[in-house]
Amino acid sequence: MWLHTNCFLEFNIPVPTPFLLMLRPRSGWQQWVAREQYVMSPGISAVEFTDMFGNLCQRLVAPAGYFSIHTSVDIETADASDMAPGAPFVEVQQLPDETLPFLRPSRYCESDRFTDMAASIVAGRAAGYDQCTAIVEYIRNTVRYMPGAGQQIISASEVNGMGIGVCRDLAHLGIACCRALSIPARMVVGYLENLHPMDLHAWFEAYVGNRWYTFDPTQTGLQGGRVAIAFGRDAADVAIYTQFGDPVDLQGMYVNVERMPGPPY
Amino acid sequence: MWLHTNCFLEFNIPVPTPFLLMLRPRSGWQQWVAREQYVMSPGISAVEFTDMFGNLCQRLVAPAGYFSIHTSVDIETADASDMAPGAPFVEVQQLPDETLPFLRPSRYCESDRFTDMAASIVAGRAAGYDQCTAIVEYIRNTVRYMPGAGQQIISASEVNGMGIGVCRDLAHLGIACCRALSIPARMVVGYLENLHPMDLHAWFEAYVGNRWYTFDPTQTGLQGGRVAIAFGRDAADVAIYTQFGDPVDLQGMYVNVERMPGPPY
Amino acid sequence: MWLHTNCFLEFNIPVPTPFLLMLRPRSGWQQWVAREQYVMSPGISAVEFTDMFGNLCQRLVAPAGYFSIHTSVDIETADASDMAPGAPFVEVQQLPDETLPFLRPSRYCESDRFTDMAASIVAGRAAGYDQCTAIVEYIRNTVRYMPGAGQQIISASEVNGMGIGVCRDLAHLGIACCRALSIPARMVVGYLENLHPMDLHAWFEAYVGNRWYTFDPTQTGLQGGRVAIAFGRDAADVAIYTQFGDPVDLQGMYVNVERMPGPPY
Amino acid sequence: MWLHTNCFLEFNIPVPTPFLLMLRPRSGWQQWVAREQYVMSPGISAVEFTDMFGNLCQRLVAPAGYFSIHTSVDIETADASDMAPGAPFVEVQQLPDETLPFLRPSRYCESDRFTDMAASIVAGRAAGYDQCTAIVEYIRNTVRYMPGAGQQIISASEVNGMGIGVCRDLAHLGIACCRALSIPARMVVGYLENLHPMDLHAWFEAYVGNRWYTFDPTQTGLQGGRVAIAFGRDAADVAIYTQFGDPVDLQGMYVNVERMPGPPY
Repeated sequence: MWLHTNCFLEFNIPVPTPFLLMLRPRSGWQQWVAREQYVMSPGISAVEFTDMFGNLCQRLVAPAGYFSIHTSVDIETADASDMAPGAPFVEVQQLPDETLPFLRPSRYCESDRFTDMAASIVAGRAAGYDQCTAIVEYIRNTVRYMPGAGQQIISASEVNGMGIGVCRDLAHLGIACCRALSIPARMVVGYLENLHPMDLHAWFEAYVGNRWYTFDPTQTGLQGGRVAIAFGRDAADVAIYTQFGDPVDLQGMYVNVERMPGPPY
Repeated sequence: MWLHTNCFLEFNIPVPTPFLLMLRPRSGWQQWVAREQYVMSPGISAVEFTDMFGNLCQRLVAPAGYFSIHTSVDIETADASDMAPGAPFVEVQQLPDETLPFLRPSRYCESDRFTDMAASIVAGRAAGYDQCTAIVEYIRNTVRYMPGAGQQIISASEVNGMGIGVCRDLAHLGIACCRALSIPARMVVGYLENLHPMDLHAWFEAYVGNRWYTFDPTQTGLQGGRVAIAFGRDAADVAIYTQFGDPVDLQGMYVNVERMPGPPY
Repeated sequence: MWLHTNCFLEFNIPVPTPFLLMLRPRSGWQQWVAREQYVMSPGISAVEFTDMFGNLCQRLVAPAGYFSIHTSVDIETADASDMAPGAPFVEVQQLPDETLPFLRPSRYCESDRFTDMAASIVAGRAAGYDQCTAIVEYIRNTVRYMPGAGQQIISASEVNGMGIGVCRDLAHLGIACCRALSIPARMVVGYLENLHPMDLHAWFEAYVGNRWYTFDPTQTGLQGGRVAIAFGRDAADVAIYTQFGDPVDLQGMYVNVERMPGPPY
Repeated sequence: MWLHTNCFLEFNIPVPTPFLLMLRPRSGWQQWVAREQYVMSPGISAVEFTDMFGNLCQRLVAPAGYFSIHTSVDIETADASDMAPGAPFVEVQQLPDETLPFLRPSRYCESDRFTDMAASIVAGRAAGYDQCTAIVEYIRNTVRYMPGAGQQIISASEVNGMGIGVCRDLAHLGIACCRALSIPARMVVGYLENLHPMDLHAWFEAYVGNRWYTFDPTQTGLQGGRVAIAFGRDAADVAIYTQFGDPVDLQGMYVNVERMPGPPY
């Protein structure tokens, strides 16, 4: 399917402030960027680089006063996310080198503290994809998904204790449990068609059956219409924007995803 | 300045044919991609990856029949290319690691065969930027720039013997001479405003005075309005498109660069 | 100075177990590996790769039964660690791309929770190196260094609350405070001459004055004689060994660092 | 098998001269470095980095006067190089991204000029491994292998015309022909047990049947006992040493490979 996405950010900046942003989706596996726009107002100079996870990152110094960023893409993405019940666990010694960082605990995914809990959740399930499914079911049954409820980012341990969280928090819990079972898992931030209420979204991927598969504890069924903006170990790696120095005021944020009737030509 | 570029390629493909393309300029040093389009007709699935020089590369299998690719960008770039007469040679032991591949001879830049010639060209010049200037002057005085004259890619040795070449050939000769003097030099393919006749363009960069500087043996003066699409050791690394298997028919190629009155918003 | 280091690990392995190890120091900035040994008993096949921080990592499956690893190096390293009181803070927009991951919070360095505390610790100090010094002083004054006290790895928040820790914990606290001030900071594990009691060691580096400087909250003065084995964001990135699956029994670990009278030839 | 290798280089250096070296084999696929030594006399400071092909490279400035480098390793390597007659050609669209640079023409492998010749050599052979075998047979039948005959490095075209060459030249010709058939091929420099006369050696690898396979046009049969020191596109990427500035005098070079009775412990 073809999607048209928009993300509009408005800031009130007290003093010139350095930003690090990840707002440019890349073409890649199952997504093709046909048209893209990245406009700043006022127009300022920025530089772009590729981080160690392959994400395109933008660096700039936002000027004092009103500052806005508007990004949009016309992108082709899969109608449905691949599913693979029964796909086997990959023995650690068989994992590709590049998946290994996603076995480690990270800021918001303290997988080193989830060994017993993860084992308990997946008891009786076949090693691999079906364990991931059990983890998603556990999260859906025990953590209430409350869009928009999160301000400060909390960790998997914290969300497990609180029993409530935003998409990011549920993903962190899923990642922590997968890693505790020696299944590489990574965070994805992006867009999801038909998300209610519409916003940026976060989900996770787990490496089983020799590839990455999508899991989303916030949704019943596993719908397609996903646009990945950035991949990382957890939210610390994939913040859409990070500002340094004194806090700035995010005055507004508008996200929109529309199905296009066909390709943009 | 803001430029709007277009590149339109039309092929007639006898049988499904794998392609490797580099047609997506990246934001980077002194260029910001505000709008971009990459449209294929018929629409097919493609994947993108980053090569070892940081270029975004697209992989696809072109279907049999008529196949076209149309890319365009709205991009901010420098009004003038930086110049630095007198900028010093960087001792090899002080060069950043990532510049070292650009000291090696490469397919079309046999710098190992240019030691004596390069030394002769730069006799009496201060080591560094001024040597590069002498090399550009030598090329302008001895090789006739004939746009559109090239079909098979020839090497620096060959162009030096023939005394005539396209932009790519002149760049290869410049690169070979710089490397023969232990100055890292790399190929750039991209767009240049006001190029006559309009086409894709190639020039080179040399690392002196602790940064890369632009050199273009095809132009009097060193005008700005440049858009880099890809960087590499020579034309072997930065082919805009490479097709594998039986030859296909490039039916048409159209390149266009326009100055925009201002930013695209 | 020239050092001879030894690290000897002995395991009792119940079932064949995949390991990921980082036990091969690399030559690099201020350290040159002249002789090196990496011997496993029983001898098994292993593969090596470079992780995203540049560390050499070994992958293997340890066989059931007794399994030992013995590594040693003859290495030249600096007599004294460089110090630079007054070296300035590097504005975020001026930081090299590759330092940016070290600004992010990580598993054991929750820098996002240390904003106020770090600001308080460095009140009145010049931005940059002197802030790092203030952080080290704070740690030395408030956290008791107790070699060998740590089993489970605890985070900067936890060590700050407990007021006691091993070298790794003190480094985590230093890193968290630096990052909270937008100073890139990274973990180093390695060897230190004259450490009492002798063991593997951990310290941290901060990026100020346009380079990395060494800080070690466990030592009075900043002695040299350091051998870096691995660099990372925190202990989650630089575990000397990680085993997957059911726990194995580390039967013994022996570390030794000797000054050599001169180079090994 | 376990091998003990030695490489001893002696230079007479007129003025302090920057060097770039590749003399430290890495553990990797089918080779494990158990002991290693890298000693320079006089002892000087050097730094090491990893190049874009994963090779460990050393940078140093050799002092005026006598200067020597002595490297040795105790290494486990395969008794026999894997062979796979019939292993299929990998369609370009299925090749891993990291193999693509090895499809391009390079300094000494002008594969763009070998299309017809390569097609002729492999006529009637199954696509893939068997084509590589045909290329090796062609080289063995048409190019006389003369160890020690090479001074200036010549290209595949040149060696094909001359009909005589050293190991490096034969490898270049093999690589050029493979790439002309869209088979990724890369150069390997290293040690080979029982080479007569003993010297550093060069061979090539081709990517067929979803992995790299070893080919060596200088040897009847495909013996094992190989130690890879460096991988690259051709000799321009994998020079054991490169010196910059005025030529230095290589006074002596001694290479030695011995079978060890068993592991070094």
